Amino acid sequence: MKKLLIFLLLSTSAFAQVNRIEPPNWWTGFKNENLQLLVHHPNIGNKTPKISYDGVSIIKVHKAKSPNYLFIDVKIDKSTKPGKFNIIFESEKGKKISQSYELKPKSKPSEDFIGFNSSDAIYLITPDRFANGNEANDVVKSMLETTLDRTHDYKRHGGDIQGITNHVDYIKNLGFTTIWPTPVLTNDMKNASYHGYAMTDFYQVDPRFGTLTDYKNLSEKLQQNGMKLIMDQVANHCGSEHWWMKDLPFSDWVNYQELYEREKKYITSNHRRTSNQDLYASEKDKKEMADGWFVSTMPDLNQRNPFLAKYIIQNSIWWIETLHLGGIRQDTYPYPDKIFMSNWAGEIMSEYSNFNIVGEEWSSNPLLIGYWQKGANNKDGYESNLRSTMDFAMQAIIPQAIKETESWDKGFAKLYDGLANDFHYASPKDIMIFPDNHDMDRIFTQMEENVENTKMALATYLLLPRIPQLYYGTEILMQNTAKPGDHGLIRTDFPGGWKGDKVNAFTSEGLSAEQKDMQSYLTKILNYRKSSKAIHEGTTKHFAPNNGIYTLFRMLNDEIVVLFLNKNESAKVDLSTYKELGFEGKKMKNIVTGEEIIWDKELTLNKKGAYLFTTKLN
Amino acid sequence: MKKLLIFLLLSTSAFAQVNRIEPPNWWTGFKNENLQLLVHHPNIGNKTPKISYDGVSIIKVHKAKSPNYLFIDVKIDKSTKPGKFNIIFESEKGKKISQSYELKPKSKPSEDFIGFNSSDAIYLITPDRFANGNEANDVVKSMLETTLDRTHDYKRHGGDIQGITNHVDYIKNLGFTTIWPTPVLTNDMKNASYHGYAMTDFYQVDPRFGTLTDYKNLSEKLQQNGMKLIMDQVANHCGSEHWWMKDLPFSDWVNYQELYEREKKYITSNHRRTSNQDLYASEKDKKEMADGWFVSTMPDLNQRNPFLAKYIIQNSIWWIETLHLGGIRQDTYPYPDKIFMSNWAGEIMSEYSNFNIVGEEWSSNPLLIGYWQKGANNKDGYESNLRSTMDFAMQAIIPQAIKETESWDKGFAKLYDGLANDFHYASPKDIMIFPDNHDMDRIFTQMEENVENTKMALATYLLLPRIPQLYYGTEILMQNTAKPGDHGLIRTDFPGGWKGDKVNAFTSEGLSAEQKDMQSYLTKILNYRKSSKAIHEGTTKHFAPNNGIYTLFRMLNDEIVVLFLNKNESAKVDLSTYKELGFEGKKMKNIVTGEEIIWDKELTLNKKGAYLFTTKLN
Repeated sequence: MKKLLIFLLLSTSAFAQVNRIEPPNWWTGFKNENLQLLVHHPNIGNKTPKISYDGVSIIKVHKAKSPNYLFIDVKIDKSTKPGKFNIIFESEKGKKISQSYELKPKSKPSEDFIGFNSSDAIYLITPDRFANGNEANDVVKSMLETTLDRTHDYKRHGGDIQGITNHVDYIKNLGFTTIWPTPVLTNDMKNASYHGYAMTDFYQVDPRFGTLTDYKNLSEKLQQNGMKLIMDQVANHCGSEHWWMKDLPFSDWVNYQELYEREKKYITSNHRRTSNQDLYASEKDKKEMADGWFVSTMPDLNQRNPFLAKYIIQNSIWWIETLHLGGIRQDTYPYPDKIFMSNWAGEIMSEYSNFNIVGEEWSSNPLLIGYWQKGANNKDGYESNLRSTMDFAMQAIIPQAIKETESWDKGFAKLYDGLANDFHYASPKDIMIFPDNHDMDRIFTQMEENVENTKMALATYLLLPRIPQLYYGTEILMQNTAKPGDHGLIRTDFPGGWKGDKVNAFTSEGLSAEQKDMQSYLTKILNYRKSSKAIHEGTTKHFAPNNGIYTLFRMLNDEIVVLFLNKNESAKVDLSTYKELGFEGKKMKNIVTGEEIIWDKELTLNKKGAYLFTTKLN
Repeated sequence: MKKLLIFLLLSTSAFAQVNRIEPPNWWTGFKNENLQLLVHHPNIGNKTPKISYDGVSIIKVHKAKSPNYLFIDVKIDKSTKPGKFNIIFESEKGKKISQSYELKPKSKPSEDFIGFNSSDAIYLITPDRFANGNEANDVVKSMLETTLDRTHDYKRHGGDIQGITNHVDYIKNLGFTTIWPTPVLTNDMKNASYHGYAMTDFYQVDPRFGTLTDYKNLSEKLQQNGMKLIMDQVANHCGSEHWWMKDLPFSDWVNYQELYEREKKYITSNHRRTSNQDLYASEKDKKEMADGWFVSTMPDLNQRNPFLAKYIIQNSIWWIETLHLGGIRQDTYPYPDKIFMSNWAGEIMSEYSNFNIVGEEWSSNPLLIGYWQKGANNKDGYESNLRSTMDFAMQAIIPQAIKETESWDKGFAKLYDGLANDFHYASPKDIMIFPDNHDMDRIFTQMEENVENTKMALATYLLLPRIPQLYYGTEILMQNTAKPGDHGLIRTDFPGGWKGDKVNAFTSEGLSAEQKDMQSYLTKILNYRKSSKAIHEGTTKHFAPNNGIYTLFRMLNDEIVVLFLNKNESAKVDLSTYKELGFEGKKMKNIVTGEEIIWDKELTLNKKGAYLFTTKLN
């Protein structure tokens, strides 16, 4: 029966008569009964579509400026049964086109799509640089970029989805619960296609990364292991080689489209991100921020075009449902039209109430970080519907705080003051924190390759009331010290990901003692974190830095986790400092070394570093 | 009749029998009918007070821990007539004490006390260093500090209230509308009494600054000139020589009092100001912040003691009513108990609904600046009742923005981004802005003594939607370059304030051409500002910096004021940049040079500097 269905599916899609219909399928059982189909086919605009299927009706048909598009508003009644039907396109004279379309049954209720949250730890991967699981797809001749060159920072290296899937166990054993691969959709661009942010097809996996089946398999394997998959999406722009750039449906599908069509020119974004909030910003600056192109190879999409808006929203939902996603990371969050972004997240979250989305606003200003979070209670009334934002503020403060010599307002004082800003956020624990990411110097480089300082930083990121994200290779002290800021070097190949690699970090073969030690260190903290309710959702208490020591507590019921950051070569901590917490006599265990202590009068920290204790002894 | 009343007043107060009764008088006609009198006299605690006066009744009498105090709750009915009465203190055996007390009529309705606001420009003065109007009070032998030494940065120099009063015309002609002298109440301290922040009597003018009559005369003269007087008050601490320190009424009148009484020791504030907001702050840190002493010579008052709390609130009201104040500046705002501070401001503002208070929170974090402002809508529910806070954030950004070489995120970009934070504030125009104050390097020093850059900075401070405050001597380029951060040097004597001064800035005699030019520059801008509704309450619009030019518009009805900051030696501004404002063809006048222009296609800025234009041609 199942085989027959697959046969039918394949066979009917073989009869598909239009070039492109998107979304390529849909589901029954959504709260929102509306669906808008984009149909692209020569002169399809002259034809009239008809559907004959119980519970499915065409509400309205929209022609575009280009004759090769139709946008069809379809209503799918709550009672509609899953199944396939044909959409018949008729013209007054001429032949009919019959297009098969499928409404699948939802495989699980929308509320069972649980988004990443503070109980998770996220492993961020640049798929081209992590592991090459399938050498057969390294080069796809039909695509614009066909060079594979592992010696070149900005060429493709051959990593793929299968490479990630092969190493889910490794990632799980480290203690991560979620992975976020940077985009794997088709980027059929001439250069630097490896990074994935210049999409040329929003519904297709890049053949060099694998197939839709590979992507589904990865998600499936993660779910089997109780893990989540975050998809990296881009609503702001597409690649200049996107299929629709040769035949844009409307004259306002992309921003500054007229200029582009006339002179192949574009206006760059002014990148004045504050214009989203600034009450004094000029219309000129607001327009240039939102409508300017990110770079010349990435046309800026006009989300004020209602058809484009629906297209992007449905695309996100299609991927959530297809891959059983555990979250979306939205690129360049403050660059698209902000009203649209609110609607986009709102539509997703109203269907998937337990889902999560994190938006990238690269700002160290807590006012901007806070503005984009759901529940921010902004004066202008803006509600992003975005549960998670990115904490570039604390990201930057932690390395400074650890590296700097202590003084009244330097060193740990910055950490203490910075974390105090949490009072402003709607929900600090839903904000993502990270030592680095694919666009930043690696944490080991930020910490000037000091291992002890790097450990202190990592322990801090993992203990804050946040959702922590680490970049692949952090566990083996990957660095980009030779070229700070260099994207290629930041995204270095993970050793062991390629056949013939002399070092294999998956097996620890060939790693230095320091690298193995860091793997072990992170494994212990991350695996403790995995089941620590105190870290996931406990209360937070910290004490002003004193004599080079900063102390952070996370507490829930009888679980107490305490982090000491110690800058002294050796220190005795007077525990009466913390007497308001009433921990006298408690037995605690060092999460990393296993050593047990009694919380009494004094605690000796016999070297510089991070000390993590818990009352959970087993 | 009036003479008779004055005679009676003087004669009855001559019969006063207690050492001290505070407030020394009160008024009829307040919304709040309650008054609490502090009475200090040997063994007064054993006596029972009685009042016989229509509409005045004793509600409750409180003994203190010290037998030498009584706190008397008095109710003054709305119908009570102004007048004098005796408070009779009786004991079971022993003689009566009769204390005269006066209820004065309010000289004007409370709503006529108009606080400083964005229509004002404030001249901040350190009275000891501005002008010596009365040499007879330079040294008061009965006081602890008797040295007058103008060559010494931290000794008294002899400036006084009369010195200010003598020069109100000068200040008015510059274009200021309000003066804020740092405190002039008695600081009978052994050292550094000149600064005024270690009060030893909250109801007495320091005899070296003058008398209460002098203070009233200053206020009177200001009012005659349509100007306002701001009083600098301190609720956090007193001087260690305060009269009550020898006989404290309660065991919790000052913080860490027990330690102080036992060992003459104290705990210093940890100065962790974020603990006021920080959801994670420990009780220990919060207590040390609020209760720790500012410095050893300034005992920290415990505003949680309800008698002290009432004392401070009534003291503020007494000075408002006595001096017809146009505002209060509250020192070290985040250091007293914050619940008390909310009540303090709340009580004042509920009596004087049009009054204004500004609190000093020395923080460049907009989250903290915003937190303290009335209407902040803080998550923790805290409402400060404080209309004005201090913008240490923009204060610091403006000099940086002007001095730095332009780049993507430096120079004017910092000004543009910084001002964008206004979206967060409950009321940006009610926030005080300043290039410097008595605790900071003078602006001319901050600007590395570059006159053109200093002018750019000053023009910016004066044009923002804020209440601007300038420090005395800014108009003659006073600087402290020789010793950055040195309080003594920052508070240099104003030339011409002392007999025999070779330079007299009041008459411009002996000033350099640059100094005269700055006097003239500020005079022009300040006098324009004085009647500029666009600057006081107009809308604000600014344009992202471009090619070394930043543009700020202030607009109300047909008044448009525009500021160009130009870092180029010469520049042509393409006015089509601003076309959304629709100013084509408008005639404008340069506020400083008087030159007229037509707002057309292009504007030439022929040198580096600030350019201020207005559509008000006269």
